[in-house]
Amino acid sequence: MSATKSYRIASIPGDGIGPEVVSATIQVVEKLAKTLGTFDIEFDHIPWGTAYYKETGKYVSEDCLDTLRKYDAGLFGAVGAPDVPDHISLWGLLLALRGPLQLYANVRPVKTFPGTKCPLNTATKGIDWMLVRENSEGEYAGQGGRSHVGQPWEAATEVAIFTRHAIERIMRFAFETAQSRPRKLLTVVTKSNSMRNGLVLWDEIAASVAKDFPDVTWDKMLVDAMTVRMVGKPDSIDTIVGTNLHMDILSDLAAALAGSIGVAPSSNLDPTRKNPSLFEPVHGSAFDITGKGVANPVATFWSAAEMLIWLGEKDAAAKLMSCVENVCSAGILTPDLGGTSNTQGVVDAVCAEIEK
Amino acid sequence: MSATKSYRIASIPGDGIGPEVVSATIQVVEKLAKTLGTFDIEFDHIPWGTAYYKETGKYVSEDCLDTLRKYDAGLFGAVGAPDVPDHISLWGLLLALRGPLQLYANVRPVKTFPGTKCPLNTATKGIDWMLVRENSEGEYAGQGGRSHVGQPWEAATEVAIFTRHAIERIMRFAFETAQSRPRKLLTVVTKSNSMRNGLVLWDEIAASVAKDFPDVTWDKMLVDAMTVRMVGKPDSIDTIVGTNLHMDILSDLAAALAGSIGVAPSSNLDPTRKNPSLFEPVHGSAFDITGKGVANPVATFWSAAEMLIWLGEKDAAAKLMSCVENVCSAGILTPDLGGTSNTQGVVDAVCAEIEK
Ligand SMILES: CC(C)[C@H](C(=O)O)[C@@H](O)C(=O)O
Ligand SMILES: CC(C)[C@H](C(=O)O)[C@@H](O)C(=O)O
Repeated sequence: MSATKSYRIASIPGDGIGPEVVSATIQVVEKLAKTLGTFDIEFDHIPWGTAYYKETGKYVSEDCLDTLRKYDAGLFGAVGAPDVPDHISLWGLLLALRGPLQLYANVRPVKTFPGTKCPLNTATKGIDWMLVRENSEGEYAGQGGRSHVGQPWEAATEVAIFTRHAIERIMRFAFETAQSRPRKLLTVVTKSNSMRNGLVLWDEIAASVAKDFPDVTWDKMLVDAMTVRMVGKPDSIDTIVGTNLHMDILSDLAAALAGSIGVAPSSNLDPTRKNPSLFEPVHGSAFDITGKGVANPVATFWSAAEMLIWLGEKDAAAKLMSCVENVCSAGILTPDLGGTSNTQGVVDAVCAEIEK
Repeated sequence: MSATKSYRIASIPGDGIGPEVVSATIQVVEKLAKTLGTFDIEFDHIPWGTAYYKETGKYVSEDCLDTLRKYDAGLFGAVGAPDVPDHISLWGLLLALRGPLQLYANVRPVKTFPGTKCPLNTATKGIDWMLVRENSEGEYAGQGGRSHVGQPWEAATEVAIFTRHAIERIMRFAFETAQSRPRKLLTVVTKSNSMRNGLVLWDEIAASVAKDFPDVTWDKMLVDAMTVRMVGKPDSIDTIVGTNLHMDILSDLAAALAGSIGVAPSSNLDPTRKNPSLFEPVHGSAFDITGKGVANPVATFWSAAEMLIWLGEKDAAAKLMSCVENVCSAGILTPDLGGTSNTQGVVDAVCAEIEK
């Protein structure tokens, strides 16, 4: 076999355990590419993050969007450091890319993974959900301010912005996602009982986009009631779509209910493919375990598999995931999942599986 | 014994199963007052709700605030009807009272109640939390709008407003609540990594109010991570405080994790006692079971017990709750909890317990 395709990936390890899980993943993906021989893949190191910020005063380079546009995709680790306020680091790097690159679909598959246990006794078969998060606006529009700072009458605002354009494109994406899955089931999360503007618009667009997908069964659910359903009737759920903040919350909850946030992947997609999409573990920089070599690399492996699917390498992704699942099933797990392996131990085991 | 105190309560049954659970509760509380003989209590019926709206065009009377101010407290059922948009009914009644009456502390005790089962296998002793929700501003400020309605470039806003005054008073209330509980443990929920104005102010005020409560152990947690902790480490939690929307979501989740939202009570308090406080079950109007006589009255019983505590009748409240717990422990439960009793059956059993 000779390599037919070749991909260049921007590797942005970032902070905390980011470098550990990203380097683990690069080892595994390079082994996969070499073993399969069906594609070439190359990772370029991009040093953005808190160290870069301390040197340059910025989390990313001035030409960061152009830099990224040279790549087929990005693999991101984590951002955030104990000595920088979170809103500076996150808006400096992660949120500085999601919006400007119009990576409007944040996709988070959630399932009870080998090696994790669903903590719910209401889920008969474990959990297998697909979460779609609007990733470009809403509560993360980044607007608002503070007036009379420090005075007893100080007032601050957070302004959420919802546009028909952005809601329509994410709704369409969510219906397509639901349509592509066996159960063809979509729940649209809303809060239009208390949010009378943007969320009412959200509801209206759901109803109108739904007409184009007669084969998808859909319902609407208030975000608060949705948590009750996730806990009480997990089997009734398949694909979920919601706003930037609602799905931020529900996707963490979903990962916890499935068994562990330590394995949860996240894809920041530009479905128009004008810009490279970014793939990242849901977990953060986890400074408490940084440098100890015990970070769980599974979420980043899974993120890389999602990246391979996005690039068109479905078979390679399937192979990678089955190797990772075998290793986890065999109990080769990091301490967060109750195992005794370290990061490199998991990497070596997955590489060995790939070669089998 | 002769009655020493006398209370007048505004009964606002509202819509759906509201009238069923409120009338059940009035029977039980009247029986309690008569049996104990330590206080008098009188309920006046106030007809606000969807029927009233259909007759008058408004959910409440023009002079609703003055009307309520004549009472010592209000007992509220539910609002919302299938043929009126939720945002009209809820802002028409519930949200029209919480803000204007400055019922700024929404308090929701959550525990694994007799007759309910905690669905989590991570909670060794079931759940026993106290949730405090900012109830007067934030994401429920009610501001925002829609521009270019129906055009492809339509944009809508939802404007959350946070004031130092309102954050300070709820934070103080939450620290006092935590202080009054055996574990003296408070978690302040935030989202200041992505919300850079109001939520940063929220964090600053938490840190400053904390200084006045050196005996309270407190920490800060992002709302998304908090769901993970609630699922994974329920025993590490005692009192929680958060914004109007965050706690709307977390309180439903908490009730579901504890065992059932069907028993969850909610107090809308004005801690300055300038205005009467309002007590209500967390569940809504539940039109699917309305009129069938099977609504679970326990959340409203519990809400009435919270009302009695607020009025100063601690012993009566304790008596009421122990009777309700005995009835639930004996398996006299409505169908939502897996029982075969109807609403009146539960009422009769609790009344019989009270007389014992
Ligand atoms: C790190 C943070 C800004 C981010 C978010 O809130 O979106 C994270 O929680 C996530 O879910 O990707
Ligand atoms: C009915 C609705 C407006 C309300 C809210 O969102 O506050 C409810 O969910 C609650 O928790 O009291």
